[in-house]
Amino acid sequence: MQGKMLSKGDLDVWHAFKQMGQTVMSGIERDLTEATGLTGSDFGVLSRLVDLGNGELRQQALADSMEWHKSRLSHQLTRMQGRDLVTRSEAEPRVIIVSITALGRERLQLARPVHAASVRRWLLDPLSSQDKTTLLNIAAALGDSEK
Amino acid sequence: MQGKMLSKGDLDVWHAFKQMGQTVMSGIERDLTEATGLTGSDFGVLSRLVDLGNGELRQQALADSMEWHKSRLSHQLTRMQGRDLVTRSEAEPRVIIVSITALGRERLQLARPVHAASVRRWLLDPLSSQDKTTLLNIAAALGDSEK
Repeated sequence: MQGKMLSKGDLDVWHAFKQMGQTVMSGIERDLTEATGLTGSDFGVLSRLVDLGNGELRQQALADSMEWHKSRLSHQLTRMQGRDLVTRSEAEPRVIIVSITALGRERLQLARPVHAASVRRWLLDPLSSQDKTTLLNIAAALGDSEK
Repeated sequence: MQGKMLSKGDLDVWHAFKQMGQTVMSGIERDLTEATGLTGSDFGVLSRLVDLGNGELRQQALADSMEWHKSRLSHQLTRMQGRDLVTRSEAEPRVIIVSITALGRERLQLARPVHAASVRRWLLDPLSSQDKTTLLNIAAALGDSEK
């Protein structure tokens, strides 16, 4: 892949894009962790277990839904298992079922309104409805470039 | 922090925002790694060493410019040192200087046009100039919410 260097204007857009992602994601992560002790990844796992699987999912289905590599998810689940948020069991050879624990459910329930308020704080409230519509269009344009 | 659940429209904006960040950042990371063997973090470190420090920076200044925690950067630099991309030396007690190696410079030079072409591919080319202007405004609005 070849290309000339980016212009000043191009760099402004690129830096603004990166910075905005970092500000919003790290703001939400911080709010969540301070209020509940969960990381964003913990929250992502717990909410998917409940929303997609009613409390349990095959490990591979969980990895697919997060678009995470198997080994990254495996490390994450080991940490969460150590904190009694999930359990893992082998349903049949090479099929691992991940289940939320009672403590995991309790933490998730506590975290949901915190997460919602934080998404409002960092992303939704600062934007006008026009901004939101444009953001959806921009996201669609960027998603379409995925090949 | 309290709050009601997010509406369907709110969730659409939040998911689009997350997805767009992930698509662009992982697309660029993949292009970079495939073409040069550098990760996005390697590239971030090497380009800052050259652009901000003409090849060397205090480790703390590097951490500040990346907005990374000291320990995260330290792990990253250990890996890069093992691959002969940077060296570290103690200039005075507790002041560590990070320097790019000849190999690091060579790799960076190879990576720059790849990175530029990839930022175009994933971010700039799919957007109209109107989109870019709006993106800058949205990024400014989201940055202003940083407290």
